[in-house]
Amino acid sequence: MRKIERRERGILIISVGFLFLFFSSPLFTDSGDEALLKQAKSIFGPLPQVMRSEKNPITPEKVQLGKILYYETRISVDGTVSCARCHPIGLYAADGLKKSIGNNCKVNPRNAPTILNAAGQISAHWIGNRTDVEDQARQSVIGPPSFGMPSHEAVEIKLKEIKGYGELFKKAFPGETDPITVDNLAKAIGAFERTLVTPSRFDSFLKGDIAALNEKEKKGLKTYIEAGCIMCHFGPYLGGQTYQKFGIVEPYSKYTKSDPIDEGRYVVTKNEADKYVFKVPIHRNVAKTAPYFHDGSIDKLEDAVWIMGKIQLGKDLDKTQVEEVITFLKCLTGKIPDDALKVPLLPSMD
Amino acid sequence: MRKIERRERGILIISVGFLFLFFSSPLFTDSGDEALLKQAKSIFGPLPQVMRSEKNPITPEKVQLGKILYYETRISVDGTVSCARCHPIGLYAADGLKKSIGNNCKVNPRNAPTILNAAGQISAHWIGNRTDVEDQARQSVIGPPSFGMPSHEAVEIKLKEIKGYGELFKKAFPGETDPITVDNLAKAIGAFERTLVTPSRFDSFLKGDIAALNEKEKKGLKTYIEAGCIMCHFGPYLGGQTYQKFGIVEPYSKYTKSDPIDEGRYVVTKNEADKYVFKVPIHRNVAKTAPYFHDGSIDKLEDAVWIMGKIQLGKDLDKTQVEEVITFLKCLTGKIPDDALKVPLLPSMD
Repeated sequence: MRKIERRERGILIISVGFLFLFFSSPLFTDSGDEALLKQAKSIFGPLPQVMRSEKNPITPEKVQLGKILYYETRISVDGTVSCARCHPIGLYAADGLKKSIGNNCKVNPRNAPTILNAAGQISAHWIGNRTDVEDQARQSVIGPPSFGMPSHEAVEIKLKEIKGYGELFKKAFPGETDPITVDNLAKAIGAFERTLVTPSRFDSFLKGDIAALNEKEKKGLKTYIEAGCIMCHFGPYLGGQTYQKFGIVEPYSKYTKSDPIDEGRYVVTKNEADKYVFKVPIHRNVAKTAPYFHDGSIDKLEDAVWIMGKIQLGKDLDKTQVEEVITFLKCLTGKIPDDALKVPLLPSMD
Repeated sequence: MRKIERRERGILIISVGFLFLFFSSPLFTDSGDEALLKQAKSIFGPLPQVMRSEKNPITPEKVQLGKILYYETRISVDGTVSCARCHPIGLYAADGLKKSIGNNCKVNPRNAPTILNAAGQISAHWIGNRTDVEDQARQSVIGPPSFGMPSHEAVEIKLKEIKGYGELFKKAFPGETDPITVDNLAKAIGAFERTLVTPSRFDSFLKGDIAALNEKEKKGLKTYIEAGCIMCHFGPYLGGQTYQKFGIVEPYSKYTKSDPIDEGRYVVTKNEADKYVFKVPIHRNVAKTAPYFHDGSIDKLEDAVWIMGKIQLGKDLDKTQVEEVITFLKCLTGKIPDDALKVPLLPSMD
């Protein structure tokens, strides 16, 4: 009962908010721009410089080691899988496949989400079975379809065989007697990933530079807000903060060919209410990270936007509206930090 | 008959050369250093700044496109193979596997040689079935165990689907009406690879800076020369200029577990004299590119050096000699050009 009350209160607050926004935002005027900026600020908020974690403070040494480990294939069971394989930085840290292919050609259950801006979300991946980016790294190295190693100990043995890691782990985790552990590997990779924030022109706009978006893009932002995308895609990352049923109004299987139907977060919780529930993906760099949805079943952004309107909002967005939304989404393509665009040299075996 | 005469003349020249070197190189003296430098200059010669080709002049636009294409997975049949997969720059452009694994987990017939300094060799790969780095790229995209595409046309269709390539190919191949071709892809990748020269401390030595190598390293160089490694590993790349039978004195299968026995260049020429003949691999960055030999059958550099002594030179190098040679080989680990260590952003589908 208490839960329902909370939800109703939420709807009331959102409704009042929308009424306020509706009356305070005349279109295509300077004061309209100011109002749009104010509104956008309240919905999205600024990106952090790095995505901090109390449990895993970011240090340059950890970041450097983490970046090296991000490219390390020699700790996978067949020597072909690294973080970068499914999250290549040059492809905006997603791999362009419907579902990633890991060791020995094993297909992963879901599409690889970009690792850019990932550390600022409530969890890593789609269904909440990885609490954060560190946990994601920790689980991936023994994930049967990813690195496929039989145990954390086996990973540690492989790491210790590569001579150069001794010094690198010692520097990143000073004072530890035996720093080469999977926990530290996860912390180092996590620290690197926590630096992968990608500000874009939209952030310049949010900081007050109204000219950072052109008229079409501001119109797109308005449509994005008014159509209701922001019900889930809010906050600095435009998503990533909540779980949501995929297919609120209609089942998504009506529009995509997904086989088998993914039960989403239910797989983790076995709670009936979590059936078809997924973490809301972020819209940062979304124009660069096709294909779309947890199953990668949709290739084109326009199809993804239209389907979302249908199944989440019960709206049949017309071509213009879809185009407007996409015009805005393209403003979210951001700048990858320079340091992340440098290939690290990996330590050799001897 | 003419061929044999040439060979004999070659042996005579080499013999006279060695006699000259023997009498002109007293050890462990300053004049010894000078003599060693002179000798080294005559055997190895300077690295070029880039590895030019008359057929494929290097331009910044071609190099830039080539670097992007080097990371492009979307033109492989399963979307997982790029040049960088088997030649990751961070691992000195070799992949650390015995034999590379390509599309759909297909195993390549031989170990992936580093692409660093590759363009300066007589051919690409091991058995002379790729005339140069451009030919290697051209053949790889349709190679069944590599990219696995059914035809060059199919690659071109995939390239054209990725919108951003239009502009990039136009810039790299100005004046062409339909520049998106596999031939141009090969030229662009080739142009990028022609920039991958990795000078090391040994080059500073060759340029006259005798202090660039320490005493142990100079001793190593002497052992390398005197043991006879230079019979095949000569020139700026320390190899890569000739084909040679692998197992002159003894069959290599006596010391490595290679199954099946690779017939080498015979596969290409069907000439009985080419059985077990391979291109001499280069020693640039050799300490960073384990495992060794065409079949990747040897993990440790010390084992590789000792086996080479046995089967190529009929010498049972002792532990000290092997260590000396390795001390020198480690001086050949070079500097990868800064630009090659930057990850390029790949064009998106829209």
